[in-house]
Amino acid sequence: MNFNGIKEILSRKKSDFAVFYNSDSSKSNANMLYFSGYSGLGATIIPKNKPSFLVAPQMEFYRAKKSAIKKVYSMEKKKFFESIREIAKKNRLKAGSIAIDKSSVTLNAYRHLKKQFGSSRFKDVSFECLKLREIKSEKEIKFLKKSCAYADKILKKAIKNFKSFKTESEAAAFLEYEAKKIGLGLSFDPIVASGSNASMPHHKPSGEKIKKGFCVMDFGVKCKGYCSDITRTIYVGKPNEKEKKIYDFLLKIQKGAINEIDNNKKCSEIYKFVNKQLGKYKGYFTHGLGHGVGVEIHELPNLTLNSKDRISNNMVFTIEPGVYMPKKLGMRIEDTVLFKDKPIILTKTSKDLLIV
Amino acid sequence: MNFNGIKEILSRKKSDFAVFYNSDSSKSNANMLYFSGYSGLGATIIPKNKPSFLVAPQMEFYRAKKSAIKKVYSMEKKKFFESIREIAKKNRLKAGSIAIDKSSVTLNAYRHLKKQFGSSRFKDVSFECLKLREIKSEKEIKFLKKSCAYADKILKKAIKNFKSFKTESEAAAFLEYEAKKIGLGLSFDPIVASGSNASMPHHKPSGEKIKKGFCVMDFGVKCKGYCSDITRTIYVGKPNEKEKKIYDFLLKIQKGAINEIDNNKKCSEIYKFVNKQLGKYKGYFTHGLGHGVGVEIHELPNLTLNSKDRISNNMVFTIEPGVYMPKKLGMRIEDTVLFKDKPIILTKTSKDLLIV
Repeated sequence: MNFNGIKEILSRKKSDFAVFYNSDSSKSNANMLYFSGYSGLGATIIPKNKPSFLVAPQMEFYRAKKSAIKKVYSMEKKKFFESIREIAKKNRLKAGSIAIDKSSVTLNAYRHLKKQFGSSRFKDVSFECLKLREIKSEKEIKFLKKSCAYADKILKKAIKNFKSFKTESEAAAFLEYEAKKIGLGLSFDPIVASGSNASMPHHKPSGEKIKKGFCVMDFGVKCKGYCSDITRTIYVGKPNEKEKKIYDFLLKIQKGAINEIDNNKKCSEIYKFVNKQLGKYKGYFTHGLGHGVGVEIHELPNLTLNSKDRISNNMVFTIEPGVYMPKKLGMRIEDTVLFKDKPIILTKTSKDLLIV
Repeated sequence: MNFNGIKEILSRKKSDFAVFYNSDSSKSNANMLYFSGYSGLGATIIPKNKPSFLVAPQMEFYRAKKSAIKKVYSMEKKKFFESIREIAKKNRLKAGSIAIDKSSVTLNAYRHLKKQFGSSRFKDVSFECLKLREIKSEKEIKFLKKSCAYADKILKKAIKNFKSFKTESEAAAFLEYEAKKIGLGLSFDPIVASGSNASMPHHKPSGEKIKKGFCVMDFGVKCKGYCSDITRTIYVGKPNEKEKKIYDFLLKIQKGAINEIDNNKKCSEIYKFVNKQLGKYKGYFTHGLGHGVGVEIHELPNLTLNSKDRISNNMVFTIEPGVYMPKKLGMRIEDTVLFKDKPIILTKTSKDLLIV
């Protein structure tokens, strides 16, 4: 998307072109997707002073043709990096310095790259790309809002139908089905964690029967490549007064954290605010407070204790405090939030404790 | 799983221990999964002469405890590689030579590893692990058979219900839902490609209405971590004689290819056999003939023109010839096959052209 941004990075890094690629059909590359809209096998090449182009294996050629980049070359998959070099040469690209994402290039891939571009220097632009992607364009915000609206709609439907699910897997499969049947992707595998399973923040839904107690549902879809992320904790059965009190306590903290968000504020400060508010429950909060959301589900900014990030306009990120008591219970309340002069909550499903 | 195998590799490579890790919660690491049964965030450490252990962030600790490795340490996620070093030190592991998978370790991760284990040599065991995983144990074969049986059952159900699907996305979502609701994973995102979309082997199902003509359905589940892979091509509407003829021609070739499989046979020979049989359609077959299947959907052996692999007992792989005429039509017929003295087809859904 942001071609000006990457061209500026190339200029700053004194690189002739950037190459982002995906050589594994079961994976995708966030930067290739971000800059080209294409997520299949192949490579996106972005020269400093020339139009960008895509290189894709023959079997993906027509899919690549549908992307935002109109110049597409066919490559031999077995000669992945050799093809990239040949096509770069054909386009008369200088290759004195090549920008790559060293957080996604593996050691073996690097060996192949060096074999093809032996005399080139390789500059890491992983952090620069993350920083670029941290600030969303209006178009991206439109997609992110849409993605959150879909996540809301589907999560509400699942909660409404919750009594019909016998197992966590059934509830998780329902969330996924509702997304996939209308052509949406998933930000991540949905989490449905009931009873003591809820004490594991990344519990994998199982075929066990849904247990009584708090049930954490963490879900997000991908719309036009952009993620959403929402968690609601419902209660299966009848909560006692103490349980209701902990939930309301956490909810108050989640809302308070959103109120703390302000322009130029240190993300670590918001994390510290939550930790302080949690008081004696502090030790039961075992993950970060939030993360940026974009073409990847985990982007900048980081809302953690040691984060160096600061809030600024057009950032989109989660606020997701939780309380996890090992082998007992767990709860998490999460919204995706846009900052634009003030925090704007994009996920709108009610946060009052819902009893099913 | 195969601890003897990896210990033998460590001994051969003169390495003190192997480390396989996953530092991204949205991904998983095939070797960590293979050796520990754990697929979350963290690291598996396999010493040459001591019992293995897992290192997982606090939030994943109880999930890791459920894996095949009983010794689990908690780590600080922010100090991923530092924690690994500390725990290795605690276990008094020598670290003169460390075995890693250079096809999954990124350049940035390697920088962190070197910072922690500055005086160690790093040996690549990516190929050795792939070769180890190429030959399946009886237990793995049991899981693979089960996985194929589930894929068959679900695919048949989808074909039976096919008339109720308006769009490709609906059909793909149905396949996924049926898997997920019983707690299975997916080998890959299901492909449902109708009309001219079928000419793109890796087409992403869209919200468009299902078109008349051949419709390719490529699907597989994960059962106990093990993949299955099956493709059937059905016909929406009424095929003409020419279309029926091409399909039957391809089916004959697919069956012929399975018959060609024999002990010690070069995989490239089976590929060449298919290419020869395809005659004038050769140019319309744009991908490999097959690939190994295990904890990953693409493993060894490779059944391609330039493959050096040979068939041997306890290999499990696909046979999937296809014909793709750009912008016109596409078809592919794929089975997952076990070789054990003879080829044994694990995916049993009928291959006769089904008209819906």
